[in-house]
Amino acid sequence: MTPFERRTRRAQSRLGAVGADALVLTPGPNLYYLSGVDAEQSERLTCLIVPADDDPTLVVPSLEAPTVRTATWVEDVQPWDDDTGPEPVLDEVWDAAPSRLLLADRMWTRFSFELQRRFPNASFGLASEAVGPLRRRKDDLERDALRAAARAADATMRDVRALGDEAIGHTEANLAAFIEERLDAHGGTGVAFEPIVAAGPNGADPHHENGDREIRAGDPVVLDFGTRIDRYPSDTTRTVVFGGEPPTGFEAVYTAVREAQAAGVAAAEPGVTTGAVDRAARSVIEEAGYGDRFVHRTGHGVGLDVHEEPYVVAGGDVELEAGMVFSVEPGVYLPDRFGVRIEDLVVISDDGAERLNDTDHGWNVDDAT
Amino acid sequence: MTPFERRTRRAQSRLGAVGADALVLTPGPNLYYLSGVDAEQSERLTCLIVPADDDPTLVVPSLEAPTVRTATWVEDVQPWDDDTGPEPVLDEVWDAAPSRLLLADRMWTRFSFELQRRFPNASFGLASEAVGPLRRRKDDLERDALRAAARAADATMRDVRALGDEAIGHTEANLAAFIEERLDAHGGTGVAFEPIVAAGPNGADPHHENGDREIRAGDPVVLDFGTRIDRYPSDTTRTVVFGGEPPTGFEAVYTAVREAQAAGVAAAEPGVTTGAVDRAARSVIEEAGYGDRFVHRTGHGVGLDVHEEPYVVAGGDVELEAGMVFSVEPGVYLPDRFGVRIEDLVVISDDGAERLNDTDHGWNVDDAT
Repeated sequence: MTPFERRTRRAQSRLGAVGADALVLTPGPNLYYLSGVDAEQSERLTCLIVPADDDPTLVVPSLEAPTVRTATWVEDVQPWDDDTGPEPVLDEVWDAAPSRLLLADRMWTRFSFELQRRFPNASFGLASEAVGPLRRRKDDLERDALRAAARAADATMRDVRALGDEAIGHTEANLAAFIEERLDAHGGTGVAFEPIVAAGPNGADPHHENGDREIRAGDPVVLDFGTRIDRYPSDTTRTVVFGGEPPTGFEAVYTAVREAQAAGVAAAEPGVTTGAVDRAARSVIEEAGYGDRFVHRTGHGVGLDVHEEPYVVAGGDVELEAGMVFSVEPGVYLPDRFGVRIEDLVVISDDGAERLNDTDHGWNVDDAT
Repeated sequence: MTPFERRTRRAQSRLGAVGADALVLTPGPNLYYLSGVDAEQSERLTCLIVPADDDPTLVVPSLEAPTVRTATWVEDVQPWDDDTGPEPVLDEVWDAAPSRLLLADRMWTRFSFELQRRFPNASFGLASEAVGPLRRRKDDLERDALRAAARAADATMRDVRALGDEAIGHTEANLAAFIEERLDAHGGTGVAFEPIVAAGPNGADPHHENGDREIRAGDPVVLDFGTRIDRYPSDTTRTVVFGGEPPTGFEAVYTAVREAQAAGVAAAEPGVTTGAVDRAARSVIEEAGYGDRFVHRTGHGVGLDVHEEPYVVAGGDVELEAGMVFSVEPGVYLPDRFGVRIEDLVVISDDGAERLNDTDHGWNVDDAT
């Protein structure tokens, strides 16, 4: 049995447990997770129908059928043609009206409205009810890919630090291009998200878009990037100074963020809630007097999606379990001055949390890496 | 008034005409089309609410607010924080329950289900009801971008033809990489879709994914690619032979496809239906005896989406109007042998159709380009 089929059988037993007749998944991470099909969403309907107690069916545009058949363990692939549309095939697949369906959380509303019209007496929920708890605990295939992607990001971070004061005078956009090139050189496939290179005051915007600002001596530079390997992403952040003296007040902020990040990682273990991890990190920053400048959650799960469950938020009540992978990334943002963020991914083990990133946590690139 | 505001005011008058209180748009082409905001869909809610008779509001994660404010003409930007979620902001924005809402066709179902729960007595439709008719007719800003993107694709197609028999021995994947490099060199931004390079029998799969097959003398090679300029895509296809003798029967198929494509373009003018354009192209291929090997529609609209309304399909009843832009791309696919497809984009003018692509329609790369 392939890992994909194994996941599908587990999802089916959860369908029974939550009282749903079937999952209906359009292209996206859940469809890939269960079928191995990496289709793109388009105006032509592709969907995987997983009944609680029968084999799954893939309904695909006939143009895509050859590619889909080679990608999946699912045997029942039903193609439809442009001249008839998918309706005749769907009429055959849905030979009995379901009473409850769980739809892909990201299904386009045009498709979910069609299902609601087709089955006016059915109730509807989201696929994450059944698939979410499985996806939160990474299996071996997933952990291997996440580790490999983290290694490529770490090797790139070392290359960036090694630039030293050569980085000064380059624009944020130049440095981002260098990062992209190094991620590929270290075996990554593209970027997991647009790399963030935020120099000086730009660092005070947590989601700054790279621009033409030149990196100056003394600029704190927030570097946040990742790549993908076997479809799984990395995501790591460091804040560094490439040379010169950092601005007044920087070291106090930096120390608070560094200690907060360490406290968050130290708090993470099976049975602890996401809210407790957030609290462990946030309280360090609050005690240092920057509580109102830590303007985002402490972290997010990482898997097929760069942002997924579990979210490490204030008050979060999800209990950590072995196999969960998420970021711990507190930050402090001082408008018009600078920002500091430090981020590692961790995987929950049987008795704690293991970091997937191991590059230096110091801000001075001249220190040992 | 910016083009974005002008489009919004037009969409608002259509809302009144179709009896809807408001549009709700999550990130995607319609949100960009009206607001100029090019946000990515994520688990954090971003939405543009356009009431029929009041100014629009953008609800955004506070992290994104600075970027959004610089991108849009919309004055009312309402940020929400991770610790409260978007609900408090939404409660204020929705100060009265609407009776009918039109939602982004691609809104994630998790968000449309939330709106259905919030307004259990409202009826729901799709935003394309109001915005689709506007987007089908391209304004000047859009036509300029589409022309520029077509020029970059054509210049690349000429570079590919100029390879001549140097292309022989290279893999499909190599040639695809060359295409990507040339698209960028000619001013494009990335690819509008994965370039298709389908050599020999691979051409018989209309959506073939590039692989390690080497291009051989006599192989018909289907080349289908495009790039984006100012967010608008190009999309053109040629089928060429880089050297040697094409297979038996190739020229008859090629002539049929070439004439079908010309017939489709010749039929396109204001007032004619999409079905009539499809018929004009398809009948040429049917008369040549390959009707059952033309397995897809004749074309698709092109705008912010590479595939959008109007679709040029058998029986299509959309009447062409000046300003519409779509592809005319008949093809014939002979399993295990080869495929032929020729594609140009056209823009409907006041009295006909103008091609946006002007590269040679012949299969022999040694002929004049």
